[in-house]
Amino acid sequence: MSVIGFIGLGNMGLPMATNLLKANHALKVFDLNPVALETIGKLGATVSAHAIDASQDVDVVITMLPNGSIVESTYLGEHGILQQANREPIYIDCSTIAPESSKRIAEAANRHDLEVVDAPVSGGIMGAREGTLCFIVGGEAGTVGKINPILRAMGKTVIHAGGHGSGQLAKICNNLLAAVLMTGTAEALALGVRNGLSPRILSDVIRNSSGRNFMVERWNPWPGILPDVPSSHDYNGGFQVNLMLKDLGLALDCAQASQASVPLGALARNLFTLHGEADEDNPLSDISSIQKLYYPNPQQN
Amino acid sequence: MSVIGFIGLGNMGLPMATNLLKANHALKVFDLNPVALETIGKLGATVSAHAIDASQDVDVVITMLPNGSIVESTYLGEHGILQQANREPIYIDCSTIAPESSKRIAEAANRHDLEVVDAPVSGGIMGAREGTLCFIVGGEAGTVGKINPILRAMGKTVIHAGGHGSGQLAKICNNLLAAVLMTGTAEALALGVRNGLSPRILSDVIRNSSGRNFMVERWNPWPGILPDVPSSHDYNGGFQVNLMLKDLGLALDCAQASQASVPLGALARNLFTLHGEADEDNPLSDISSIQKLYYPNPQQN
Amino acid sequence: MSVIGFIGLGNMGLPMATNLLKANHALKVFDLNPVALETIGKLGATVSAHAIDASQDVDVVITMLPNGSIVESTYLGEHGILQQANREPIYIDCSTIAPESSKRIAEAANRHDLEVVDAPVSGGIMGAREGTLCFIVGGEAGTVGKINPILRAMGKTVIHAGGHGSGQLAKICNNLLAAVLMTGTAEALALGVRNGLSPRILSDVIRNSSGRNFMVERWNPWPGILPDVPSSHDYNGGFQVNLMLKDLGLALDCAQASQASVPLGALARNLFTLHGEADEDNPLSDISSIQKLYYPNPQQN
Amino acid sequence: MSVIGFIGLGNMGLPMATNLLKANHALKVFDLNPVALETIGKLGATVSAHAIDASQDVDVVITMLPNGSIVESTYLGEHGILQQANREPIYIDCSTIAPESSKRIAEAANRHDLEVVDAPVSGGIMGAREGTLCFIVGGEAGTVGKINPILRAMGKTVIHAGGHGSGQLAKICNNLLAAVLMTGTAEALALGVRNGLSPRILSDVIRNSSGRNFMVERWNPWPGILPDVPSSHDYNGGFQVNLMLKDLGLALDCAQASQASVPLGALARNLFTLHGEADEDNPLSDISSIQKLYYPNPQQN
Repeated sequence: MSVIGFIGLGNMGLPMATNLLKANHALKVFDLNPVALETIGKLGATVSAHAIDASQDVDVVITMLPNGSIVESTYLGEHGILQQANREPIYIDCSTIAPESSKRIAEAANRHDLEVVDAPVSGGIMGAREGTLCFIVGGEAGTVGKINPILRAMGKTVIHAGGHGSGQLAKICNNLLAAVLMTGTAEALALGVRNGLSPRILSDVIRNSSGRNFMVERWNPWPGILPDVPSSHDYNGGFQVNLMLKDLGLALDCAQASQASVPLGALARNLFTLHGEADEDNPLSDISSIQKLYYPNPQQN
Repeated sequence: MSVIGFIGLGNMGLPMATNLLKANHALKVFDLNPVALETIGKLGATVSAHAIDASQDVDVVITMLPNGSIVESTYLGEHGILQQANREPIYIDCSTIAPESSKRIAEAANRHDLEVVDAPVSGGIMGAREGTLCFIVGGEAGTVGKINPILRAMGKTVIHAGGHGSGQLAKICNNLLAAVLMTGTAEALALGVRNGLSPRILSDVIRNSSGRNFMVERWNPWPGILPDVPSSHDYNGGFQVNLMLKDLGLALDCAQASQASVPLGALARNLFTLHGEADEDNPLSDISSIQKLYYPNPQQN
Repeated sequence: MSVIGFIGLGNMGLPMATNLLKANHALKVFDLNPVALETIGKLGATVSAHAIDASQDVDVVITMLPNGSIVESTYLGEHGILQQANREPIYIDCSTIAPESSKRIAEAANRHDLEVVDAPVSGGIMGAREGTLCFIVGGEAGTVGKINPILRAMGKTVIHAGGHGSGQLAKICNNLLAAVLMTGTAEALALGVRNGLSPRILSDVIRNSSGRNFMVERWNPWPGILPDVPSSHDYNGGFQVNLMLKDLGLALDCAQASQASVPLGALARNLFTLHGEADEDNPLSDISSIQKLYYPNPQQN
Repeated sequence: MSVIGFIGLGNMGLPMATNLLKANHALKVFDLNPVALETIGKLGATVSAHAIDASQDVDVVITMLPNGSIVESTYLGEHGILQQANREPIYIDCSTIAPESSKRIAEAANRHDLEVVDAPVSGGIMGAREGTLCFIVGGEAGTVGKINPILRAMGKTVIHAGGHGSGQLAKICNNLLAAVLMTGTAEALALGVRNGLSPRILSDVIRNSSGRNFMVERWNPWPGILPDVPSSHDYNGGFQVNLMLKDLGLALDCAQASQASVPLGALARNLFTLHGEADEDNPLSDISSIQKLYYPNPQQN
């Protein structure tokens, strides 16, 4: 078993770290939130006072942070974990950030002869809790091989997407598509319901036809079709609209930089901003709440 | 076993009729195309000289025709099959047409005390051949129960969507979503490839993440990822762009009539028209050829 | 001066008929609304009890009706004005309807050796009152020449767009573009205001730059920039959202029938439906109220 | 008259500098292109060997450079013109760059007690030649007053948009709208022509109706309607598609940073990228060439 530094204990990081403890890894942890530290401390993790402390005397450092500027300052800042680690741990950044940020961190790591990967995850909070995340990894194949057992303690799938930044890029492309799927599914359901169809039966038709997709199967935006999804709990839990907007922002930045056309993704982004503005609760609601943009008051079915 | 009249032996109708023969039903068939008639005749069907002949002395009449005006004239015209049938067969219209057309036919049938359902299918030519179609049925529950065994000879799923026209409506909603899925998947793949990702690995990531959908799993638009799909055969076979445009036209008509918002579906429709115009072969290519709008010359991977 | 039958005295028809009276034409009028009839009767028009009566013993019949089915039944129905006129008046249909409807009426007129034009107008209620409408006319050049003096009594511009239906088509193309202009102007203003610009100064910049358009000059959607526009009166008056949706519906029908791509027009249509649904007052508000979709509570500037 | 340093003599800068000479200002100029330097030198300007030289011993420095990183390095780099000017000239940056870049330059200028404005222009190459540009200025009101006479030598309109960066922001909002106007106008014209209308007559209708805009009046995308516009010269000259894409990129970055919804602008951006990719000549063609995306081979009318 390994000694692992874990920095960032939010909605995703905390259950991921918990699964590492369950797999008998030793953990040194850091977060700004004392409640999260206390929770994980009670489960056996060693609490650090600073990020830099959590990256000392460890085999691996995992970071799970909210955005690129925090990730860059944590790795590359004045007290950055890259330049001040006393051993030569492997760094695994599970945050979702711009591929360019991941590349900058990799270049800095390379100058220090350190190994790093970008390893953003798919699967959400449920996947983090259940240990069924999919890790999408960018970096050297050798590094990916070494960290595979540790990632497996937190997830069921590890895909090596390519060189540094490729994990981010693939995650971003997936999330662009997920935004389109959710919006499109809500649109199709509203069209049917407005014309008299049952949303449950229409979902059943779609699941058995060419419209089948992750949303209609696992994340249905119409309330009451699936039991344990955000739409059935007033759109609470799940993946917040404002976080999807952050990821769509990364995708559209990539598209602009590479002269790529992303008309559907761009439209989905704008529909989510319109939705986010229509009610002050919406930005914190699950993305499936976009159903309400198409159909103001969808009733439990 | 039943005696079945089958009118319309195109790319879908011919394999469907063939499966009915295999299930030991007796068939009386009609089509304007003598080649199709000859083919099915050799398999044991009785060839009729007119549509009206194929609907005499039968238990069930199945129609599989290209558009609403042909369906309406076949059912309601001067020599329409509804008013001139000598028995009282059950009518099953498997064509994809406007819900309003289906309703008009149902009203006429009702005046003649005849039973009719709209039963458009999902699953495409492959599903028709393999007998794995999904029938989406609108009409009376009693009628749907009676015809279930016959539909099962051609498909594996029968969903009762609601009253007359509901089968059409659910099919239309599904196809609107399918157009969005295909376009969105092509968009996400092109974004990744432009930024250096392998389309195969990216497809793998999407299949394991929240972007999962029917297209990435069964109808991947990037050549060479899946072996037996149109994209791997120069976009031949499958579901033609101009037929998708017909279905999207039905969906957008429904949206306008019901004041529904369908921004993604409308955008997908316009991207397909732009694509259809970019090259004279495109309207007859499979819908997955939309990949070429996003990435001009996608190479086998 | 002519004797003119005028059928349809709504928000547009009443001021148009009034201008004809001012120009010393004799009027026979019909409308279902007794208040409108009384108003115009006091100004000197002869009130008829039925549409057909207003088209007897006249030189010209003008119709200004709300939609194509009313226009078709007025012209072509059982008591239709085309078949029962005792003289051979020239028919001028100023309603905005589908080009196909105008063509059907023209074909029927042709069978009766009657002259008809489609002559929808641009300029709105203000233009109708001030007599500054633009008539967009489809039909024979000879007919257009004959009616020119009468149209000039109600407007300042007469454009002969082409054969029957061309007036409708040109009007529809213009209104599609107008919807895009209004939506785009609201979008640009909201973007600027969100980033700290004054909407008044930004309007001034746009008026002097390549973004200049009818909306920023004459129909500014931000309240308080222009004094006598709907946005400065809580979006009352002007051109209702639901009427624009009707016209956009005609445009999108034309686009589908001709395989034309109209991505911006289709998006504008969907933004107007989303807007119309966001508040029950919106469908009856002026189209400039789309500003509120982009910026929830725009303040008088 | 003033002594003016002018840095950046491209398609816009050269005619602007020429107009300053015509107004009897003394010019010190710099550009990397020796041909441009020779041209302006013959007209009486003093040619400098480095950017920094052109900013010595002058009353005003004007910069007209292709993008934000060049502007920032010119002002703020190692040999940046801000820190090494021997007098205290007023700096006028006429480049179109991100508002944030303009703000960074203004902050640096403030630290050196120097006056600077962002003053991007509208009016294109024709406006630069004819001296009819519109300057959209961000900065202190006092500074704007001082430079007004100099700007008037190059343009006919000067609008003070607000504080530092406001000129950029207003320019960006205008260009977002201009992209929508051009795309929408091309869309409306193509819809009409596909249905049999003359593009010339339809343009005439639009010019007299609510679709009126800068494009139909001054930059018509259909060939042959207006004599001296790019569309009538095979889409040469004017404002290149790739430069519009740069400006739309700035607009969409602003929209993301401010959570603004810009669905039409985002769609126009994606239509321009699709257009740019359809033919290798398109990125260098005028933006009115978007007409070809809607109608493949528009004929001179």
